Amino acid sequence: MKAEKFTLLRHFDGWPQPSDFQLESEELAELQEGEFLCEAEYLSVDPYMRPYSRNLQPPTTMIGSQVGRVLESRCERFPVGSRVVGALGWRSRSVVKGDTPPAVFGVRPLPELGGLPDSYALGSCGMPGNTAYYGFLELCQPKEGETVVVTGAAGAVGSLVGQIAKVKGCRVVGFAGTDAKCDWLKTLGFDATINYKTCPDIDAALKTAAPDGVDCYFDNVGGMLSQRIRQQMNLFGRISVCGCISSYNEKTGEEVKVEVPEKTILFKQLRVEGFIVSRWDKEDLWQKGVQQMAAWIRDGKIKVQETVTEGFEKMPQAFIGMLQGENTGKAVVKAAAE
Amino acid sequence: MKAEKFTLLRHFDGWPQPSDFQLESEELAELQEGEFLCEAEYLSVDPYMRPYSRNLQPPTTMIGSQVGRVLESRCERFPVGSRVVGALGWRSRSVVKGDTPPAVFGVRPLPELGGLPDSYALGSCGMPGNTAYYGFLELCQPKEGETVVVTGAAGAVGSLVGQIAKVKGCRVVGFAGTDAKCDWLKTLGFDATINYKTCPDIDAALKTAAPDGVDCYFDNVGGMLSQRIRQQMNLFGRISVCGCISSYNEKTGEEVKVEVPEKTILFKQLRVEGFIVSRWDKEDLWQKGVQQMAAWIRDGKIKVQETVTEGFEKMPQAFIGMLQGENTGKAVVKAAAE
Repeated sequence: MKAEKFTLLRHFDGWPQPSDFQLESEELAELQEGEFLCEAEYLSVDPYMRPYSRNLQPPTTMIGSQVGRVLESRCERFPVGSRVVGALGWRSRSVVKGDTPPAVFGVRPLPELGGLPDSYALGSCGMPGNTAYYGFLELCQPKEGETVVVTGAAGAVGSLVGQIAKVKGCRVVGFAGTDAKCDWLKTLGFDATINYKTCPDIDAALKTAAPDGVDCYFDNVGGMLSQRIRQQMNLFGRISVCGCISSYNEKTGEEVKVEVPEKTILFKQLRVEGFIVSRWDKEDLWQKGVQQMAAWIRDGKIKVQETVTEGFEKMPQAFIGMLQGENTGKAVVKAAAE
Repeated sequence: MKAEKFTLLRHFDGWPQPSDFQLESEELAELQEGEFLCEAEYLSVDPYMRPYSRNLQPPTTMIGSQVGRVLESRCERFPVGSRVVGALGWRSRSVVKGDTPPAVFGVRPLPELGGLPDSYALGSCGMPGNTAYYGFLELCQPKEGETVVVTGAAGAVGSLVGQIAKVKGCRVVGFAGTDAKCDWLKTLGFDATINYKTCPDIDAALKTAAPDGVDCYFDNVGGMLSQRIRQQMNLFGRISVCGCISSYNEKTGEEVKVEVPEKTILFKQLRVEGFIVSRWDKEDLWQKGVQQMAAWIRDGKIKVQETVTEGFEKMPQAFIGMLQGENTGKAVVKAAAE
C-alpha cells in the first residue's frame, strides 16, 4: 500500500519555510496481528508543533494528530470503517498498533460527538477543546462577574476559552490580530476586543475594555503583550500560560526582552501557571472534557469555526499560515481535495 | 512627653540616601481613654519598606514595625510594663490606640516566646518568620527529598526558609552575596551555597549544587538571577515570589530586562505565585506560625542570627545597609545605645 508523508528536514530557525519539509512516498508494510491501516481524513496544524519539533531529530516525519478511517484491520478495537483520532504524524496513511495508549499523543477511537463533524475531534472536541476547558477552568478558577482576558483569542483554543468564560458569567476581552477576527469574536459573545496590531494605545484600550481590572488572563502569546496585561491584573489574579506564540518564531539572538516579571507578580499576588494539556489525559477526565465541550456546542452555547485547507500536500502551507495568524478558529487540513 | 521620629522627605529614586530622611522631635499629646504610650526597644528594617514607601505621600513618618514597652496606659489590654509589637513607624515613642486591629500592619501584645529574645518578634517569630513559614510551605508545597533553592538566603526570611526546608527533608541550595554569608549558611545546614557576586558561571554552579534539578524556588530577588534559576527548574516546579530586591533600587529608566518568562513557565509547567504575608494575618493562623517557629528555634532545629545596629538615630544607616546586603540574618535597630 502506497502512502505519503512529510519529513522535517531540519530544525526551524525563525519562521518555518516550505523548504524545511519534504513530501515523500513510502510503501507500507503488511499488517501484523494487532495493527490496523488508517487513512487520514483531517489533519491538524497547531502552534505546539513549532516548539515541540525541537525535540525531534531531523530528518524525521513531522508530528501531528489526525482523524482517520480504518481501511484494513487486524485489531478488534479498531474495526474496518471506524474512525480514529491519533498522533500519527503528517502521513496520508499509517500502519498503527491498536494498543497504542489512548493519550493526547496516542491513538483512540473517535469519540461519539452526537452529530458534530468528525473534524471537531481535532479542535473543540479534542486536544484544543480540553486545553481550553481544563487549562482555563482549573488554573484560572474564574468566578461569575470576573473579567477574563484572552490573547490569541481568535485561535482554536482562545475562541473556546472566551466562550467558556461567557458560559461562566464573566466579562470577556479578546486580543486578536485583524479587525475581521475582532468582529467575529463579537459574534461569539466577547464583550470587547482589541486588535493588538493596529491599536495605538493598548494600555488605554485595555483600561476601557476592562474598567474593573483583569481577574483572569488566559495567555496564548507571552512576551510584550502579556507584560502589559499583567500590569492591569487585579490583586490575586490568575494567569494560565497556555502558549507563547510571540516568541516561537524568533531567530536565535533576536529574542524580545521584557520587564522583570516578579515585581508585578509579587505586589499583585498573582498566580501564574504554565500547563500542557497532557496532564489531564487520563481517559475519564479526557472524555469528560470532550463531552462537555460537545454538549455546549450542540446546545448553541459555544460556536465553532474551522479554517480548512484542502489537500494533504498543503500541510506546510496550512501550518505556516496558522503560525502567521491566517486562520480564524481551528486550522485543519482536509486530506482529499474535493 | 518628648519623642523623636524619622520623616521621609521624598520618594527614593535608586538607592535610598541618608538625606531622604529627617530626624525630628515632637511633643506627644496627653493619653486619651483607650490609648497607651509605647517606647521603642527594637525597630525593624526590612526590604519591603523600599517598595512600600511608594504608597506614602512625603513628607510623612517612615513606615516600620517595632517592639516596645508600655510606659503609660489608659487601656486595659496593654498594661504598663507590658511589651507590644506593632507597625508604629520610625518613632522612639508613640501614642497608640489600644484597639488597633492585631494585623501585620497593626499592633498586638508581644507573643509569649518561651524565653526567646523579644526582638525575635520582629524576625523569626514575627512578620519575616511567617513570611518564611507560610510563603514557603503553602506556596512551594515542598516534599521530602526535593531540591529547594533560596535567593537572598542569608537574609531574615531566606535563612529561615532554608532551615524550614531542611526540617522538611529537602536538599537546600542558598544564594548569597559574600563568602562569609555562604559559610554561615553552611553552619545552618544548607547543603550547598553559591556566592552570586563572585561565581564565574552560575549556571554550572547551580547544576553542580542541584544535580537533580530544582523543585522549589523561594525567590527574594527576582530579575536575572531568577531567570537563570527558572531554567533549571524541574517539571511541575513551584516558585514562591517573596521579594524582588534586585530591582527595588533601580533608577527610573535603567531597569534590567529579562527573557520572556512564559516559555519556561509553560514547557516546565511551573506554578509561580507572588504573596504578601498579610494574607495569613488572621489571628489564629498568625500565632500558629509564630509559635511553630519559636518551637523550632527552642528545639535547636532553626538557628537565628541578628545584625543589631545601636541607636535610634541610626535607622537610615541600618535600612540602607540592609538593602545593600550588609546584614546577616535579621537587621534590627536597638533604640537605646548601650
